[in-house]
Amino acid sequence: MNDRFLKACRREPVDATPVWFMRQAGRYMKAFRDIREKHSLLTVCKTPELACEVTLQPINRFDFDASIIFADILLPLEPMGLKLEFVKGEGPVIYNPLRSEKDVEALKPVVPEESLAYVMEAIKLARANLNVPLIGFAGAPFTLASYMIEGGASRNYLYTKKMMYGAPETWNRLMMKLTRVLADYLSAQVDAGAQALQVFDSWIGALSPGDYRTYVFPHMKRLFSALQAFGVPLIHFGTGTATLLQMQKEAGGDVIGLDWRVNLDEAWDHLGHEVAVQGNLDPLTLFGPISELEKRVDDIIRRAGKHPGHIFNLGHGILPETPLESVEAVIQMVHEKSAKILAT
Amino acid sequence: MNDRFLKACRREPVDATPVWFMRQAGRYMKAFRDIREKHSLLTVCKTPELACEVTLQPINRFDFDASIIFADILLPLEPMGLKLEFVKGEGPVIYNPLRSEKDVEALKPVVPEESLAYVMEAIKLARANLNVPLIGFAGAPFTLASYMIEGGASRNYLYTKKMMYGAPETWNRLMMKLTRVLADYLSAQVDAGAQALQVFDSWIGALSPGDYRTYVFPHMKRLFSALQAFGVPLIHFGTGTATLLQMQKEAGGDVIGLDWRVNLDEAWDHLGHEVAVQGNLDPLTLFGPISELEKRVDDIIRRAGKHPGHIFNLGHGILPETPLESVEAVIQMVHEKSAKILAT
Repeated sequence: MNDRFLKACRREPVDATPVWFMRQAGRYMKAFRDIREKHSLLTVCKTPELACEVTLQPINRFDFDASIIFADILLPLEPMGLKLEFVKGEGPVIYNPLRSEKDVEALKPVVPEESLAYVMEAIKLARANLNVPLIGFAGAPFTLASYMIEGGASRNYLYTKKMMYGAPETWNRLMMKLTRVLADYLSAQVDAGAQALQVFDSWIGALSPGDYRTYVFPHMKRLFSALQAFGVPLIHFGTGTATLLQMQKEAGGDVIGLDWRVNLDEAWDHLGHEVAVQGNLDPLTLFGPISELEKRVDDIIRRAGKHPGHIFNLGHGILPETPLESVEAVIQMVHEKSAKILAT
Repeated sequence: MNDRFLKACRREPVDATPVWFMRQAGRYMKAFRDIREKHSLLTVCKTPELACEVTLQPINRFDFDASIIFADILLPLEPMGLKLEFVKGEGPVIYNPLRSEKDVEALKPVVPEESLAYVMEAIKLARANLNVPLIGFAGAPFTLASYMIEGGASRNYLYTKKMMYGAPETWNRLMMKLTRVLADYLSAQVDAGAQALQVFDSWIGALSPGDYRTYVFPHMKRLFSALQAFGVPLIHFGTGTATLLQMQKEAGGDVIGLDWRVNLDEAWDHLGHEVAVQGNLDPLTLFGPISELEKRVDDIIRRAGKHPGHIFNLGHGILPETPLESVEAVIQMVHEKSAKILAT
């Protein structure tokens, strides 16, 4: 069993820096595209054998140090009562977005072990076939709320911020309901075998520091308090978070995710070395020549230095058109370069 | 003549903090929508009487302390040889995006006084009718290059970064061509009567600090060196720039634009008070109740304190559906609240 990833989460010494990529089970792999040609995204998520198969694809093909269960952050929205579809070329669409107090009150309670049982089944299947740790995950309340309120992806978060500013009680009610569902959902994932958890607050960078503090922080703190009881490492991820990192750390997480907009050493110094960090290669650098890619991997490994607790990752999910050679090269470079530094 | 804005740009004492809004001539005003119902965006830009008329609309209706000439950052791309159209609901589309060295070499030199004469005409007309300073503007090389290469707005800047990493000579050639066109274009705007200049590097927040330093900074430094000779205040604006601000200041500008993702006092302390700052209200707060808006205006005015050199603005352009009452309220609050603080 390769335990570099779990050791790094706990800031224990490792022989080489562990590496995995967000969305590593994805369209950049032909094996994944083959499955997606035959099945919709929701079908793959809801069929444990298929979800397990795509979870394993990158592990069987590359030298990744961790796997992440194949699922979508929006899955818990269905049992809550939202009509969800993934429209080709458009991304997720929610046909009955939340706009009023009544909409929020009408959300249904969720028993994840029942309505999301397929995720737990996929986790169990994957665990039985893996020799690297398996990460479970969920979207964070703000990021999920933004989809629920906007009805899909958003540029300006108009309706989300309208509710935040104009109906803060409705907003808080929604965030509380989401926090509860997510805590239960992540608990069920750990029961099923997830060995670490990542909370994706992908769109949190849309908020000012003041708004994060007022409208999001209390809920994230509550969520992480609940997750802490599960006894597995917790990764707290977002993008565009340069001015939110300190509050994210305060909210919780053993590992703080960093995107490429911050220099890893400066961000880690700012956070303090009592947390681990994950990141932070720009996924677009994988489209450049290997020589350029090497400079950037070098830079990140050098900035991480000998501090225990660095997990190498991209700053956001890998893109569909990414060349396989780049993926392979990065993993090898991370292992080799970090092993040299850590051995000195 | 109201000269609060120009005084603040030069960090001279003012009686009250000047305020203007990016995209203040825009769809949130009925008078603007009426004109746009009859004429396309490009027609309004290219008809000096219409461009002047919409430039004046917000000045006649609100107590703004500065005006900005109505134009689009993409206008200089047409004489460079790109086929540009604004498609309803989609935004700008460029039908012949740049992808190769040959494409970049084929770009045509631009004499702004000729091919963009309509902008200078609009500036002259507007100046004759204004009692507040008139700002000229242009997009920054990176932001314009991203549109030229992607063929429109972009989420990931795939082709832009591919060129940056994979063909840095082509990239630098493009940036140099753009820098030259933009310097000439802004020079012509000053000759026509623009009393200050804003450079919009709106999408620069997509880059890591290291990539900004390598691929953008040298060009921005060259651009601002050229602009400095024109003798008018220079505003250097971007979004998502929390980790780029220091380099932006080093590149140039009398005023650094701040978006809402940074706290104004922290960003200004970080930059140093030898530059002025502009910002930084989240444009979405204008959709909230006036009482919430007031808290946020209060907070920004309080953070700016008594330091000379704060220009109040949004962190990005005002949105089409923004309520007029909020615009009116913010301007009044800024003037009243700042006057009280500055008088003590």
